[in-house]
Amino acid sequence: MSLIVTGTIGIDTVYTPTGHASKVLGGSGTYFAAAASFYTPVRLVACVGDDFPPTFMSTLSHFRGVDLTGLEVRKGSKTFAWGGKYHPDMNGRDTLFTELGVLAEAPPKVPGSYRDSRFVFLANTHPGVQIGMVEQLPQRSLTVADTMDLWINTAKSDLLVLLRKVDGLVLNFDEAELLTGRKNVVSAGRHILEMGPKFVVIKKGEHGALLVHREGIAALPAYPTEQVIDPTGCGDTFAGGLMGSLATQGKDPEAAKTAGSFDSVRRALVHGTVIASFTIEAFSLDRLKNLTRPEIDKRYADYAAMVRV
Amino acid sequence: MSLIVTGTIGIDTVYTPTGHASKVLGGSGTYFAAAASFYTPVRLVACVGDDFPPTFMSTLSHFRGVDLTGLEVRKGSKTFAWGGKYHPDMNGRDTLFTELGVLAEAPPKVPGSYRDSRFVFLANTHPGVQIGMVEQLPQRSLTVADTMDLWINTAKSDLLVLLRKVDGLVLNFDEAELLTGRKNVVSAGRHILEMGPKFVVIKKGEHGALLVHREGIAALPAYPTEQVIDPTGCGDTFAGGLMGSLATQGKDPEAAKTAGSFDSVRRALVHGTVIASFTIEAFSLDRLKNLTRPEIDKRYADYAAMVRV
Repeated sequence: MSLIVTGTIGIDTVYTPTGHASKVLGGSGTYFAAAASFYTPVRLVACVGDDFPPTFMSTLSHFRGVDLTGLEVRKGSKTFAWGGKYHPDMNGRDTLFTELGVLAEAPPKVPGSYRDSRFVFLANTHPGVQIGMVEQLPQRSLTVADTMDLWINTAKSDLLVLLRKVDGLVLNFDEAELLTGRKNVVSAGRHILEMGPKFVVIKKGEHGALLVHREGIAALPAYPTEQVIDPTGCGDTFAGGLMGSLATQGKDPEAAKTAGSFDSVRRALVHGTVIASFTIEAFSLDRLKNLTRPEIDKRYADYAAMVRV
Repeated sequence: MSLIVTGTIGIDTVYTPTGHASKVLGGSGTYFAAAASFYTPVRLVACVGDDFPPTFMSTLSHFRGVDLTGLEVRKGSKTFAWGGKYHPDMNGRDTLFTELGVLAEAPPKVPGSYRDSRFVFLANTHPGVQIGMVEQLPQRSLTVADTMDLWINTAKSDLLVLLRKVDGLVLNFDEAELLTGRKNVVSAGRHILEMGPKFVVIKKGEHGALLVHREGIAALPAYPTEQVIDPTGCGDTFAGGLMGSLATQGKDPEAAKTAGSFDSVRRALVHGTVIASFTIEAFSLDRLKNLTRPEIDKRYADYAAMVRV
């Protein structure tokens, strides 16, 4: 089934305890689309400025499943740029700078050829913009959004409207606590379901993720690894694997009827976990660029063996 | 197979965000033995003062599988007492007071009738005392120790000697980091294996546990629950379920040969996780006192369903 993502494309500068990378390709839409493309074709709606380096464009093209029709290059505008520095334990980070560039302008339009998209992922951006995207996709059958503390603090009423329009929400644990005022992760998840979504995926970084769904609860540890170079984009590729897998499951007309069911989301979360475990192994999209399907399948099997009860 | 534990029996005063309990039964040996007794008979080696309340003694007797032959009541001595206050997120706690009492005296002796014990758990105490215990148990076939930051900071050389004598170590993540200087949990685990043990279980509280074993790695989430009243004793009951299950597996002479294998420890960890999830539901041993085997079996099945890939 057709999968679409709206998100950012950015130029990242990242410092981690093991090294740093200056002016590399990043952004939520980029990471999501690259990860999802291992599962299914994915339509990317995003915009960049005319300063966007041709080498980054060819990196995007390298992921053959990523449809770039919806990538808008704006004359006279600047590409979004972000700099961050991770804490020694890699679980937190400080933003060093944010140059919004095109993100401060009108959001990108959804091309007419994308209006029949069925699986929709709204990567993290202002919830008002996310609502605008949803409204351009009348045939959507499963819509999942990401959000962050900034919008919970500054645009909560828009976010609450958005939550009535989506099937699923993906967010970090501290954001779930901020949104609900509840410290217990299960309790926070249940509270979010009362706000609208059918399910919520609460990400805990190296501690894995919790799925709270109207039909049940599932817990997944992260893939235990020593190869931790750069966590940037892990959450977005996690979502990419999740939605890519859901869209693939949705190819079967029978399975499509239950897309978004507890079992389908749980199955998809394993793919999200696996693909995120590769992202962390290098800066930018360096690991994903060289990733092969057999490597994904092997790690899936390893992970299943590590967590089986 | 015969299981023995050496640990503390204490009188706890606990403050959590949901309430408090004053002068209730606690201690690492108490929690461990109560939990293990759901799986197998367990020999408890510990001492208390003559101030130890008769009602606490009858609570201990309530767990029929706990053999109290090794419980020494010392005339003129005082029972160990501890007070603690948990942080709002329940993941950390501050010690309010520690009255060592009998813990400052000579450690309890292992009764002659216990010397044939095969499965040994050394609950958290000075590593020098743990070494003394091990030396009184010549027929041990699987020995696992717990430790804490205090001993890593103040008795590291004794601890390193102990680590050469045990098959397994159980400790919290921050303690593993302190012991190894490594922030990555897998890396810390591997480093501990170089210090002697065949396996290490790194506990992460609500984030579950990681098993790093010479034969492989396994990750387990905690049982996701909203019913969080008091985390005191969770780590000890986790170890009790782990060792109780290992000792039960060891009843079969064939299985006994592989006690401590990767698969046996992983299987046992699920029992530790399940029984710890009950401990947290009430203060002191209040939940364990009323716990039944069918409840354990049901939660085991629920947990397996929540984490299956």
